[in-house]
Amino acid sequence: MHYDLPLERLQEYAPDLPEPADLDDFWARTLAPLRRDASYERVDNGLVGVETWDVVLSGYAGDPVRAWLHLPAAALRSGPLPGVVQYQGYNGGRGLPHEHVLWATAGYAHLVVDTRGQGSGWTTGATGDPAGSGPAQPGFLTRGLDDPDTLYYRRVYADAVAALEVLRSHELVDPARVAVAGGSQGGGISTSVAALVPSSVAAVLADVPFLCDFRRAASVAQAEPYLELVRYLAAHRDRVEQTFATLAYVDAAVLAPRATAPALFSVALMDVTCPPSTVFAAYHRYGGPTATKEIDVYEYNDHEGGGAYHQARQLAWLAQVL
Amino acid sequence: MHYDLPLERLQEYAPDLPEPADLDDFWARTLAPLRRDASYERVDNGLVGVETWDVVLSGYAGDPVRAWLHLPAAALRSGPLPGVVQYQGYNGGRGLPHEHVLWATAGYAHLVVDTRGQGSGWTTGATGDPAGSGPAQPGFLTRGLDDPDTLYYRRVYADAVAALEVLRSHELVDPARVAVAGGSQGGGISTSVAALVPSSVAAVLADVPFLCDFRRAASVAQAEPYLELVRYLAAHRDRVEQTFATLAYVDAAVLAPRATAPALFSVALMDVTCPPSTVFAAYHRYGGPTATKEIDVYEYNDHEGGGAYHQARQLAWLAQVL
Amino acid sequence: MHYDLPLERLQEYAPDLPEPADLDDFWARTLAPLRRDASYERVDNGLVGVETWDVVLSGYAGDPVRAWLHLPAAALRSGPLPGVVQYQGYNGGRGLPHEHVLWATAGYAHLVVDTRGQGSGWTTGATGDPAGSGPAQPGFLTRGLDDPDTLYYRRVYADAVAALEVLRSHELVDPARVAVAGGSQGGGISTSVAALVPSSVAAVLADVPFLCDFRRAASVAQAEPYLELVRYLAAHRDRVEQTFATLAYVDAAVLAPRATAPALFSVALMDVTCPPSTVFAAYHRYGGPTATKEIDVYEYNDHEGGGAYHQARQLAWLAQVL
Amino acid sequence: MHYDLPLERLQEYAPDLPEPADLDDFWARTLAPLRRDASYERVDNGLVGVETWDVVLSGYAGDPVRAWLHLPAAALRSGPLPGVVQYQGYNGGRGLPHEHVLWATAGYAHLVVDTRGQGSGWTTGATGDPAGSGPAQPGFLTRGLDDPDTLYYRRVYADAVAALEVLRSHELVDPARVAVAGGSQGGGISTSVAALVPSSVAAVLADVPFLCDFRRAASVAQAEPYLELVRYLAAHRDRVEQTFATLAYVDAAVLAPRATAPALFSVALMDVTCPPSTVFAAYHRYGGPTATKEIDVYEYNDHEGGGAYHQARQLAWLAQVL
Amino acid sequence: MHYDLPLERLQEYAPDLPEPADLDDFWARTLAPLRRDASYERVDNGLVGVETWDVVLSGYAGDPVRAWLHLPAAALRSGPLPGVVQYQGYNGGRGLPHEHVLWATAGYAHLVVDTRGQGSGWTTGATGDPAGSGPAQPGFLTRGLDDPDTLYYRRVYADAVAALEVLRSHELVDPARVAVAGGSQGGGISTSVAALVPSSVAAVLADVPFLCDFRRAASVAQAEPYLELVRYLAAHRDRVEQTFATLAYVDAAVLAPRATAPALFSVALMDVTCPPSTVFAAYHRYGGPTATKEIDVYEYNDHEGGGAYHQARQLAWLAQVL
Amino acid sequence: MHYDLPLERLQEYAPDLPEPADLDDFWARTLAPLRRDASYERVDNGLVGVETWDVVLSGYAGDPVRAWLHLPAAALRSGPLPGVVQYQGYNGGRGLPHEHVLWATAGYAHLVVDTRGQGSGWTTGATGDPAGSGPAQPGFLTRGLDDPDTLYYRRVYADAVAALEVLRSHELVDPARVAVAGGSQGGGISTSVAALVPSSVAAVLADVPFLCDFRRAASVAQAEPYLELVRYLAAHRDRVEQTFATLAYVDAAVLAPRATAPALFSVALMDVTCPPSTVFAAYHRYGGPTATKEIDVYEYNDHEGGGAYHQARQLAWLAQVL
Repeated sequence: MHYDLPLERLQEYAPDLPEPADLDDFWARTLAPLRRDASYERVDNGLVGVETWDVVLSGYAGDPVRAWLHLPAAALRSGPLPGVVQYQGYNGGRGLPHEHVLWATAGYAHLVVDTRGQGSGWTTGATGDPAGSGPAQPGFLTRGLDDPDTLYYRRVYADAVAALEVLRSHELVDPARVAVAGGSQGGGISTSVAALVPSSVAAVLADVPFLCDFRRAASVAQAEPYLELVRYLAAHRDRVEQTFATLAYVDAAVLAPRATAPALFSVALMDVTCPPSTVFAAYHRYGGPTATKEIDVYEYNDHEGGGAYHQARQLAWLAQVL
Repeated sequence: MHYDLPLERLQEYAPDLPEPADLDDFWARTLAPLRRDASYERVDNGLVGVETWDVVLSGYAGDPVRAWLHLPAAALRSGPLPGVVQYQGYNGGRGLPHEHVLWATAGYAHLVVDTRGQGSGWTTGATGDPAGSGPAQPGFLTRGLDDPDTLYYRRVYADAVAALEVLRSHELVDPARVAVAGGSQGGGISTSVAALVPSSVAAVLADVPFLCDFRRAASVAQAEPYLELVRYLAAHRDRVEQTFATLAYVDAAVLAPRATAPALFSVALMDVTCPPSTVFAAYHRYGGPTATKEIDVYEYNDHEGGGAYHQARQLAWLAQVL
Repeated sequence: MHYDLPLERLQEYAPDLPEPADLDDFWARTLAPLRRDASYERVDNGLVGVETWDVVLSGYAGDPVRAWLHLPAAALRSGPLPGVVQYQGYNGGRGLPHEHVLWATAGYAHLVVDTRGQGSGWTTGATGDPAGSGPAQPGFLTRGLDDPDTLYYRRVYADAVAALEVLRSHELVDPARVAVAGGSQGGGISTSVAALVPSSVAAVLADVPFLCDFRRAASVAQAEPYLELVRYLAAHRDRVEQTFATLAYVDAAVLAPRATAPALFSVALMDVTCPPSTVFAAYHRYGGPTATKEIDVYEYNDHEGGGAYHQARQLAWLAQVL
Repeated sequence: MHYDLPLERLQEYAPDLPEPADLDDFWARTLAPLRRDASYERVDNGLVGVETWDVVLSGYAGDPVRAWLHLPAAALRSGPLPGVVQYQGYNGGRGLPHEHVLWATAGYAHLVVDTRGQGSGWTTGATGDPAGSGPAQPGFLTRGLDDPDTLYYRRVYADAVAALEVLRSHELVDPARVAVAGGSQGGGISTSVAALVPSSVAAVLADVPFLCDFRRAASVAQAEPYLELVRYLAAHRDRVEQTFATLAYVDAAVLAPRATAPALFSVALMDVTCPPSTVFAAYHRYGGPTATKEIDVYEYNDHEGGGAYHQARQLAWLAQVL
Repeated sequence: MHYDLPLERLQEYAPDLPEPADLDDFWARTLAPLRRDASYERVDNGLVGVETWDVVLSGYAGDPVRAWLHLPAAALRSGPLPGVVQYQGYNGGRGLPHEHVLWATAGYAHLVVDTRGQGSGWTTGATGDPAGSGPAQPGFLTRGLDDPDTLYYRRVYADAVAALEVLRSHELVDPARVAVAGGSQGGGISTSVAALVPSSVAAVLADVPFLCDFRRAASVAQAEPYLELVRYLAAHRDRVEQTFATLAYVDAAVLAPRATAPALFSVALMDVTCPPSTVFAAYHRYGGPTATKEIDVYEYNDHEGGGAYHQARQLAWLAQVL
Repeated sequence: MHYDLPLERLQEYAPDLPEPADLDDFWARTLAPLRRDASYERVDNGLVGVETWDVVLSGYAGDPVRAWLHLPAAALRSGPLPGVVQYQGYNGGRGLPHEHVLWATAGYAHLVVDTRGQGSGWTTGATGDPAGSGPAQPGFLTRGLDDPDTLYYRRVYADAVAALEVLRSHELVDPARVAVAGGSQGGGISTSVAALVPSSVAAVLADVPFLCDFRRAASVAQAEPYLELVRYLAAHRDRVEQTFATLAYVDAAVLAPRATAPALFSVALMDVTCPPSTVFAAYHRYGGPTATKEIDVYEYNDHEGGGAYHQARQLAWLAQVL
């Protein structure tokens, strides 16, 4: 069922979201200490067309973050490779060494990055989050809400930026041709990374992104994980305004105007997890009025969005853009 | 929740299933007319590591059946290739040209075969089923129940055998090293194909197979699509015995003793779609007492079974067996 | 919950639905070959007030279609009888010989017609559909969507017209006083039949009709079977426009302006299966501006609609109209 | 899913249910004051094959109870008629005058009796219950549980006996050939009436009866209305034993051995409302070891049981027995 | 999800609800016979800080109504006590002697009153309702709908007024400082009592009140018990207007303008049981344009509303107002 | 529904659970560093019968843990007070200052302790958990599963022991008469604390305890939060044995034999959250063969267990035991 705004109103939904006064300082302060350190260990993935390395990179506060680097097999590559950094959906991880090899099969250096503390769901991860939290809902969205400095997604975005720079500095990769990509939570992270380090991002693939326009999301979402936020506010009835003010620091729709790279978004009009209005909020704000951007609308899909159809679209679009 | 028999009883659950008197005749008659015709058209899959051909093969009654043939890129192959024929889960199809390329990336010639009439679900297909049906439940399981000759899965199994022979006769493929594989419906089809043409099958990968021990399944399954059968019997209260007698012709657990190839099964103990007892029924009967077979038990999984963990297991197992 | 448009907006909801250019040709071509053949065999229904015949009539492409003809017992009848042809709800069939005898008890010749391929649900049927389908969702709504010529409901409507003419040509029936009737799918069929052969229909009883205003239905319906269409479009993301263009050939709301007979509709405002707006779309378009028509609004009912209350209303209304 | 005992254990499930010491006194005292008064008013049911009278009879404590008397039209009848008294399922009522006319169409005098206080559900009623209740769950099952004398079903059973005697004393009816019948609650009432006034009952038709073996029912039922009892006991944790001791006075399985009439039961093995074990408890205890009785087992049905198939069976069975 | 009107429209939602012509007469007639009789028996509650008496008071028609009177322990009290009469949520009762002692611990004489016939749910009661009902839905909301005189809530409101007067006449209580309080059903009763006997009520605490603006409630509520009304109207399709006309006599939103006491309401914007619009209807109409009233809005809560946060608010607010 | 073992088998269910070899060392090492530091600040709770202090105590690793200390008002107390330390259910916290005052009203010094990191659910907390976790499911149960040393519940149990000692060392409290108490998670913590520091615990009140017999719980639980563990194992298919071996360190049923204090347990036979067999496992193992213990069985309750009825029982039982 189409439960959110009708399409014609979605196509103009570009809310004026309040931006924290110290937003740029906050992120400058957060990202400054990041280093590009990474270790690489070759692993056997059972495949002949893709080579895989186990990567440990240095994320927020120097915490180790795990990733797989997938490369096209040596026989398939020549010259510096374009790259894709892929961030994961909520509760997932980088998975097993053979699990996400499409971009490498398509000729890209592909870095599949864990999300700290996650990775016990549909795919598994190997990266913990050493930081704890104040009283929070089960889940990740409401961790650290007491202060922007302790926000869980502050650490995640910093890890994501570090991962991007690690791939860009790899000897086989062309640093000017690296895209960020992901669906759901990965789409939100991609959008935010594009806004935080615009000069490092050559393209953005953001599918049905999570982490956008939190106030609207809490009002209309019908499925996890935005409902974690609803339950948190249902318990902490006295922290509504403070909570949204804090979340603004990691709201991809708030950050989006800072981005500059060409972007391909997707949105699903029956998506009860990431409501279409929240996706359009990020899309319409993305990159300011002059950005090169497109959004593919999947009219009858829930959170699976465009699925393999959109993958084919991304393969074609990215081949042209990078 | 573990709702089926406890594991220790599952490990001995090998029911004595009645076999139709004319079972071998029925299948001999069904498979005899099959031909190995197939057309191949190269398609652009957007990838550098895998080549894909659009295959139209001749299935039951000569009906066209669509498949993708994925091969490792030329730079990656040498000598005759081992092969994998993959049958789909219920409601799925061969998908898009870039969608199931893992086996090719692992060095196999990989034929991804449509299931006639299906392919409008989690993956899409391009193969219709020109045959209709008597009064049936919405779905595929109860089509053609009036007579073994009109059973939907009779046609599906014949298509599956045809596809196997097509891959075995491909010039780049070693016909002695072709496996059949699939999950859920694809696992049931694989098991049945291994029983119907044992000399053509070098190995079987059957994950959480559907289409096994129908009477038990109708009694304990809690999710679609076995519930189609329950609803059919709830409506046609006068056809219970006739229905199970008819289904016996396509019951993978009934057919399984005829198989001879080494097999790797998997079962999930919280699987509400394909109850573990029905999988063990097929496994324990598979290949008779001397078969080379293993079953991996996923104790806390629902129908997703072993997922990527089991894929890794299959990559290793098949590399050894073929 | 009232989830669709509020009543005051429903009362003006008369969308301008696009009509295929060759719609009349399509149906002329479809209906031309129909014949009025039927065989009758008396069956024992266990009743003294109603006589029942097992009817096999010739439907689309000459396919056999089963029906029951119920007549008031001989002691109860005198002169040519008015008639009612009743089409079934989705997944149902003509049932058993004693099952739908109200209209005969009320003095009508009553033809209860199977829906081909259906009849394994709340009532059972005995009529198969020999035609298959391209890749489709489990269910009937998305069968044959590749082309208007192969649409499942093309065949169903043709069967329905044939059944109407069979009853009209029965020796005990007054051909000028035959109504078409049905609920849900049966209501959609009735409306379409009234539009396809207006001169043969003396009255229409359409309850909470299905098969109306498909695009709106796919957008707002919350229950099966319209969700089959939503899932089909969710899978075949590239066929949205083509699908609705094809369905227009069998959309009762598209066809409705061609009807001329007096009609009694009903609609339920909490109907999550056949959304009230889709029913009003058909009703408001029915018969053009001058039609004799009424619609009974059941404000707090779901798809059960007016139930026995509306049956009483129909008995009274039809007694007056015929 | 088959959630209750397996069929082979159901077929021997005949629990030894404790009987209140004063059970016979209790019922003698309850039934003694009943009178056979009834008023009849002819109503227009819109039908030609059935005549209907609005009956007001005198139930428990002289309270007015409404019923419809349906008779075959005069042209269809000759000699004293056999009769059927039909009791309703939970939450239903006698419905509208045209609503339950099958038995009359089959040649029986048919009395469709309201259940006091009910009749606002799937069918409507016109009979209130002037007696209130102590603290009770929403619903009817836990009303009056403080004392056997105030039990809701005490009044209902008394009404049911009165209705039976009213039909037996009707001038067109043969008092030696009157059956009691009903499904679910109506099946429980029928069974109890057969036990309370065995000499007045010529046959029993009890479908998927409710009100049997309450302790077992509270333990295994998964759907309303037995869950009213579970919730009542969940609230009144100190009244478990007292509650079951009180309910024993109206437990059809407790009363069943007193019955003598031939009986046709039905049971559905996937019935989550009236668990099959509770039905077998009543069936096996019915009429003692020498009773003429049968039970039809519907293996894949939920509470709809045998539906129209069983109706056909009942028409045939009753024609033979009466 | 915010499913009702948006907050800005809720803040102006003050419907013009039709008032029965004889509303004041009806209530004058109802309340006139009430007496202030009550018996008190001290019970052991296991506590040292609160003393509890078992109260039997005389309600509607002199029916006995049970309550607990909780007082601060003698060592804690001095001078006449302010009082709180608390009415219960749907299906609850006064509970056990130690169960609701917060107001007494806060220094108030606290009368916890049963709701007749209820008390078999989340808390238990000891008060029956000797009056029966015409055909009604399982539950309490639709009992007695045939006539305003037999309405269940007529009796409940009369009991509530009687309880208020009993507490006001207790020797330790200051009759000028007695509040009425409750959540959900208790909030609706409190509001109505404040309207029926405005001079006896010193303050109102109405949380997420039930029993307000029935027509709107039946249209938008998604959870019990308003759905009892929806189901009743779904069954009795011919009684829609009569039903709402009858319910107007006990609609707290209809009665609310008659109230004069200061009031603190609460509303939860995700409340699917008592829709926020129905609460705002009562609030905005409460006490006419000059009333001293406040409403606390809990933006992300369902029917639990403000919970303990609002209790703290009430403790502070009432300390100031009384 | 009774879905777990039947009562007669539950009453003998005392599994032989494997105990880690270094279990005592592990806990000695964990508890040794704890200190009894605590700060107290009086807060206004709006009550006259109970005084409340905001307590900050020093938990695991010296982390601050928040609690409320509720005392009977000065006018109500004399001599050293018996005490109750109450641990919270999953997702809850100490709540607001007026929220849990029953034990103080009953004359006990009552320490209501937060659970670190929780407190955003049905009650709120103010205590964070500074420690992070490896990849975990959303929720608390699977945090730190990589190693017994990092287990979340290791820290929680240490906090719980610290809180107990803080209350025992309060100047108004009799250290020989302090009980531990809680429901669900609080019941599991109470049981474990009684086992870890038996000489400090005078009595145990454990209601429907969580954290018992994890392997059984993962097999039969139907509701959160044990399902977190099921999902974790569904993802990490390779960690099943390691996970249960690690959890054994904090399994209350494993620890229970070490306890010595008199105990009152409760269990609910329809509890889908904490299955009755897991509760009986802890109960039967508790305190070895000679322990003074009782268990109250609530036969028709889900996880709410005995509710207020059991509170009354606890008030009486504890008054006798302490």
